[in-house]
Amino acid sequence: MRGSMMNFPLTVNHVFERAGQLFADREISSRRPDRTVQRYTYADFCRRARRLASAVQRIGLRHGDRVATLMWNHSAHLEAYFGVPLAGGVLHTLNLRLHPDEIAFIANHADDRYLIVDDVLLPIFEKFRGKTNFERVIVVPFGACGAAIEHQNYEDLLASGSEDFSPAADADENDAAAMCFTSGTTGQSKGVVYSHRALVLHSFALALPDVMNLSTHSVVFPVSPMFHANAWGLPWACVMIGTALVFPGPCLDAETLLDTMTTEGVTHACAVPTVWLGVQAALEKEPERWKFSSPVTILCGGMAPPISLIRNLDRANLRITHGWGMTETAPVATVGSLKAKMAAWPADRKLERRAMQGTPVPFVEMRIMRPEGEAPHDGKTPGEVEIRGPWIASSYFNCPDQQHRWSKDGWFRTGDIATMDAEGYLEIVDRSKDLIKSGGEWISSVDLENTLMGHAAVREAAVIGVPHPKWQERPLAVVVLKEGAAAEPEELRAFLSQKFAKWQLPDAFVFASELPHTSVGKLLKMKLREQYAAWDWKTLDQVR
Amino acid sequence: MRGSMMNFPLTVNHVFERAGQLFADREISSRRPDRTVQRYTYADFCRRARRLASAVQRIGLRHGDRVATLMWNHSAHLEAYFGVPLAGGVLHTLNLRLHPDEIAFIANHADDRYLIVDDVLLPIFEKFRGKTNFERVIVVPFGACGAAIEHQNYEDLLASGSEDFSPAADADENDAAAMCFTSGTTGQSKGVVYSHRALVLHSFALALPDVMNLSTHSVVFPVSPMFHANAWGLPWACVMIGTALVFPGPCLDAETLLDTMTTEGVTHACAVPTVWLGVQAALEKEPERWKFSSPVTILCGGMAPPISLIRNLDRANLRITHGWGMTETAPVATVGSLKAKMAAWPADRKLERRAMQGTPVPFVEMRIMRPEGEAPHDGKTPGEVEIRGPWIASSYFNCPDQQHRWSKDGWFRTGDIATMDAEGYLEIVDRSKDLIKSGGEWISSVDLENTLMGHAAVREAAVIGVPHPKWQERPLAVVVLKEGAAAEPEELRAFLSQKFAKWQLPDAFVFASELPHTSVGKLLKMKLREQYAAWDWKTLDQVR
Repeated sequence: MRGSMMNFPLTVNHVFERAGQLFADREISSRRPDRTVQRYTYADFCRRARRLASAVQRIGLRHGDRVATLMWNHSAHLEAYFGVPLAGGVLHTLNLRLHPDEIAFIANHADDRYLIVDDVLLPIFEKFRGKTNFERVIVVPFGACGAAIEHQNYEDLLASGSEDFSPAADADENDAAAMCFTSGTTGQSKGVVYSHRALVLHSFALALPDVMNLSTHSVVFPVSPMFHANAWGLPWACVMIGTALVFPGPCLDAETLLDTMTTEGVTHACAVPTVWLGVQAALEKEPERWKFSSPVTILCGGMAPPISLIRNLDRANLRITHGWGMTETAPVATVGSLKAKMAAWPADRKLERRAMQGTPVPFVEMRIMRPEGEAPHDGKTPGEVEIRGPWIASSYFNCPDQQHRWSKDGWFRTGDIATMDAEGYLEIVDRSKDLIKSGGEWISSVDLENTLMGHAAVREAAVIGVPHPKWQERPLAVVVLKEGAAAEPEELRAFLSQKFAKWQLPDAFVFASELPHTSVGKLLKMKLREQYAAWDWKTLDQVR
Repeated sequence: MRGSMMNFPLTVNHVFERAGQLFADREISSRRPDRTVQRYTYADFCRRARRLASAVQRIGLRHGDRVATLMWNHSAHLEAYFGVPLAGGVLHTLNLRLHPDEIAFIANHADDRYLIVDDVLLPIFEKFRGKTNFERVIVVPFGACGAAIEHQNYEDLLASGSEDFSPAADADENDAAAMCFTSGTTGQSKGVVYSHRALVLHSFALALPDVMNLSTHSVVFPVSPMFHANAWGLPWACVMIGTALVFPGPCLDAETLLDTMTTEGVTHACAVPTVWLGVQAALEKEPERWKFSSPVTILCGGMAPPISLIRNLDRANLRITHGWGMTETAPVATVGSLKAKMAAWPADRKLERRAMQGTPVPFVEMRIMRPEGEAPHDGKTPGEVEIRGPWIASSYFNCPDQQHRWSKDGWFRTGDIATMDAEGYLEIVDRSKDLIKSGGEWISSVDLENTLMGHAAVREAAVIGVPHPKWQERPLAVVVLKEGAAAEPEELRAFLSQKFAKWQLPDAFVFASELPHTSVGKLLKMKLREQYAAWDWKTLDQVR
């Protein structure tokens, strides 16, 4: 027997329409590159997003077409987050921190038709422009830097659209609304296509009291980039709930962040630990400058926050909630919230618990898989995290070799190694074996290795993540030269920089006579990691 | 283009499995008829619900079969809330306050195969038993009153089931999970069949900070009956979030409720205003007896709470949130929460706002319809509330004459007359014209009228709701006798009691020479309501 309930689709269109009706005068502010603040309301945002939707349809957007953005976190990006899906298009956020060639590859692979780009990011665009074929480039006068007469001005585009725009009534919740590429799990970026349904359900989960606790009384500061993993889904969740929004623009230094948080009355923020380490340092330097009389909820993810960071920020009334997820999981899958009975625990035990990846949010299911089957929930036995749920990717976009990322029974294989304890808390004990996590971004060691091994002098190379006080990990390359060949670190670095962004390059090159291998001939990186675990980064300059 | 997300169904099965993994030691307590308290944990609840699911399958439950319950709010009822859908069945909660004939009609109409009944409710069952054909009657030894050797004992049934039970892996989110009958919108109860999807999405909405604000740290006290509108969806929402649960059993007097709230540390409760009026009176009588050091969230619905009640309970730290909905809306559709900017309003203005039905929760859409079209959102122009969303009924169960309850474009026509203001706040200005709201329950005036008019001496009758200090409204019958005929109130009362429960009977009978009618010959009840608006219920005994 079927339920006799309405077949009402879960779309961001509803989220948008409701926000316009209920939260018209709620504020949205954005910091411009010159540090001034642009302010407007949900009513303005809705009018402009409608104009955008109408305008992109008028210039020829068809259902399902991709519209790329190369933008910082600010209100025009939010307009694109809604305006593009409202028009039936797919928002494709380009990661401006990738190497220009990789951005071009991603835009071409996604078959993006239009690009919306911040004027201040045109220099990046120019670096890959020649390798792409956008039908139209729309420039947002975000920095008011007067560039780009040759491209269309975003404001002119909006002027050509209509405020009376309404989205199609027959929107399907399984239609694509947005798209984001992973930053290189096996060296090649892969596209994840989010359905309306996934974004809506993720928003519900994110807003729950035990996750982000989002209310219309909240003032939310999404510091994690809207160009990667959708600022952790906050743009959609916040508009669903009607929170005030505060966007940092490109001003991500700790002092400006703290100034913004105090002057705007921020109640919730999100960013990777690296950002909060900077905030911690600023607070230590000037302990009297910034005061938070009410607790601020900080969603912290991308890598595990150090316990000392959680403790120190607690003292400043900045309360870290550790969340874990990936581009493939929309992204929030677990949060390190405490259970009711843990309220009575000693402070240190609570801190340890909060530093864990935590428990799955509603409708995310996880299991820890080992060659012999599912690992017990004993907090000791590690295995690969497999995950499923309505906002977990079931495939990559147009990707020929991807089957190995899903189990035969349909779970996504995260590549992360973790334990789970009897309380259901996940703790990642090893990063996925081939990835380096640097400042919340992933660097593919395989990609670096493969490129290095393309150098004439290199016989074999391994790149591993080595603990780093600031970035959590930085890549270190262990290189075996061909017999009789010679190469200096600087030469290898220059060679790699043809393909990789600067932050992806190994910070050190070590030369060895051989590399350890498994019995089946695979690189035994674990051994290398052990060998270089105590690497002293102060020696960097010498090695470089 | 489609999203590439997993097709993961929204089912209460997931809610159940997750709760068992994450909240095993969270407490569930239930007050027994003798006022003692039964305590157990989610782990116990899950084991027993699995046994129930396994056992009902073993006795022959097929996918989609209905299992009726005639039970108070306690842990075994929660076991049925999950155990029945887990087994693929449909939980059908019978309203024990209806007339036995109506309960029988409803059970037969729903084609219920099994009945789970509290031992203390067997006297009610005996009254309609002869008119029903349950294949099996399972008696819960809730009151330990030693009855019913002829029926199966619930504990024996559980003993025959297995704790290893797992729900079918291919559950469909659109399958029916539960069913509830309205209490007489046009005199005949109609069945609403809730899908898994509807219950899950309703749970997400209910848990949001701006709705019920449910956290795993919450201790929730569902006082509104599980046998009507699913205790406002709390059983599913609370298990999804992992709150502690406190069930009142049949002990609904104000003193016991207050005792329970203080001793159990209740943080959230729900019930109709009548219950809270009783609580208010108890607090006034003994102001020092019960103290709430932290605010308790009270979801109050079924009818509008008087502003004086909201104000008085605020003083006791019991904070009313007014919610509005119906059986057809699963039920929560709006809440009278304040917006951020309203925090600065004067106290009285805030109270007025909180007494309104409020704004729609995410994914509920409303419009106010008049003959000429949609009413403006001016807070003045009344019209019929129409509603749609993923947890709104699209039809009644096996009901031939129902098309008029849905608009041609698929909105549910609530029958309630309301205004909506520019802030999106709904305010119901008239109850649906034919219904009487007494103590949070509906009484169908049409049904009473039709029955009355079946009496030999009655020519015409109108039954209207007249304001009542305790019950909000009580029915008053205005009767026109046939020429030359005679009848006393007591006689008419006895005549009606053959079909109606005692609380549904008019409290007063007034005899008139004629009734007002509209130009098309319909009863003009508005006129009668005006005429009897100041009815003095103290004259009741004389009229009776």
